[in-house]
Amino acid sequence: MFATGAAAQAPDADEAAKPKSAQEILDASPDAHWRALDPANTLYMELDAGRVVIELAPQFAPRHVGNIRALAREGFWDGLSIYRSQDNFVVQFGDPTEEEADRKPLGSAEAHLPAEFERPAAGLEFTALPDADGWAPQVGFVDGFPAGRDPDTGTAWMAHCYGALGAGRDMAADSSTGAELYVVTGQSPRQLDRNITVVGRVVDGIELLSVIPRGRDPMGFYEDPAERTPIKAIRLASEVPPSERSQLEVLRTDSPTFAAATEARRNRRDDWYKVPAGHIDLCNVPLPVREADD
Amino acid sequence: MFATGAAAQAPDADEAAKPKSAQEILDASPDAHWRALDPANTLYMELDAGRVVIELAPQFAPRHVGNIRALAREGFWDGLSIYRSQDNFVVQFGDPTEEEADRKPLGSAEAHLPAEFERPAAGLEFTALPDADGWAPQVGFVDGFPAGRDPDTGTAWMAHCYGALGAGRDMAADSSTGAELYVVTGQSPRQLDRNITVVGRVVDGIELLSVIPRGRDPMGFYEDPAERTPIKAIRLASEVPPSERSQLEVLRTDSPTFAAATEARRNRRDDWYKVPAGHIDLCNVPLPVREADD
Repeated sequence: MFATGAAAQAPDADEAAKPKSAQEILDASPDAHWRALDPANTLYMELDAGRVVIELAPQFAPRHVGNIRALAREGFWDGLSIYRSQDNFVVQFGDPTEEEADRKPLGSAEAHLPAEFERPAAGLEFTALPDADGWAPQVGFVDGFPAGRDPDTGTAWMAHCYGALGAGRDMAADSSTGAELYVVTGQSPRQLDRNITVVGRVVDGIELLSVIPRGRDPMGFYEDPAERTPIKAIRLASEVPPSERSQLEVLRTDSPTFAAATEARRNRRDDWYKVPAGHIDLCNVPLPVREADD
Repeated sequence: MFATGAAAQAPDADEAAKPKSAQEILDASPDAHWRALDPANTLYMELDAGRVVIELAPQFAPRHVGNIRALAREGFWDGLSIYRSQDNFVVQFGDPTEEEADRKPLGSAEAHLPAEFERPAAGLEFTALPDADGWAPQVGFVDGFPAGRDPDTGTAWMAHCYGALGAGRDMAADSSTGAELYVVTGQSPRQLDRNITVVGRVVDGIELLSVIPRGRDPMGFYEDPAERTPIKAIRLASEVPPSERSQLEVLRTDSPTFAAATEARRNRRDDWYKVPAGHIDLCNVPLPVREADD
């Protein structure tokens, strides 16, 4: 009995002694630490290569998200293209027509919006990282979005990490409408933080955007329009029949599972790593996504 | 005469008042601030899509670079492939055969090398950045390579920035030979610093690697070998006829031009930027390359 008991317990005791990997922490997570995407704030970008799923952030950019919802509802991007792919930076899509008068009409979307570069931090649940950051006084996550915060000014803003969706603009801060959008496909260009309105992030399918051939122009625009990647459609998930929706869940960034998985990445304790970093950068923190169980 | 003089000088005066952009600084740089690549430390990876130019770093990984030179000279990678592409992380190439005994022979390259994760900082010209970094006590550049340094231990190491070339290894620190190599194609995985031997960096043609379709396996390996990207050849530039060499020059990272261009990026003063970041991350610093004049 004793021998059997000892044998049965030994693996558990070993298990307890060995720190869990991020994957083991995720595998053991309770369902309550995950949340489904809100269909009213989810965009599907349909490409020949498949679907890119985007979560919008009305808590940071309500006016832009309002416009993007209207544009998606009215099929603004359908038949347009990804017309820019700059290596280690962004892909950009919308209507590249030079002359504003010749561009596809915005329909019921507003032609002019305020800049939404930052907002009051009050009212946001901000899960701060303990890690130092060179770009912002504090960094962390708000509802799954990587974000910066400044206690002195009381403001918060979304950070330009890999997969961030931003609203292209001209010289004036308030010249974006949400019709021209870009997704970060390279090393996080955090110098853009607070200089442009971030409207969401890619949750799934970023690998369909990151492999798009780069344009030869220094900024990644294509010389030949035939090189552009056609957009079949961009739709709000709420306007797609439920049977055609992606059933995705994202890990809550305010959950103990997220904190534990991030710590397991900050200090890798597996046998492969010889020197744990003792640090993680905001844009290196994985944001887990999974298929929902039926 | 006065009026003419004033008119002629006015643009110069304006010019002096307006801070120069990084591009303007580069355009005005003296030739002495640039250097040609050393053909003995330059690799050409020939793909169907074109040439990737890699600079090796014998000052950091002399034994690995010695092996890589031997492997290139003997055509080790010719006919092998890029067999892994993991989104926002790396592409990896070499011989993916599971059984070591069945792998392509290493020829005159050594079968066992020491780990070369770091080296004494003494003897390196380290151009430090003033910017805070969460991963290393100090960061900067050594001969064009992004690097970290620890004054307490007196060591320095190459950093995993976009384009870094590293030597894949198994569990043991000293299990890399340089035959299996990877290139960083995503957000800089600095947690790998000091955990693996970095051997160089891509200087030109990274956009041929970064667009390679991602493997479906979670680590980016391809299920079907037909999905792999064939490698036509990897050659040392010194073994390629001069007429077939790429004529590239890189900006010296110990030059005043590099310091000024980096400062112009740290604090963007052009009209588009509304909030200069006041910071730049090691892996966000551009490393300019140009075609040499004939």
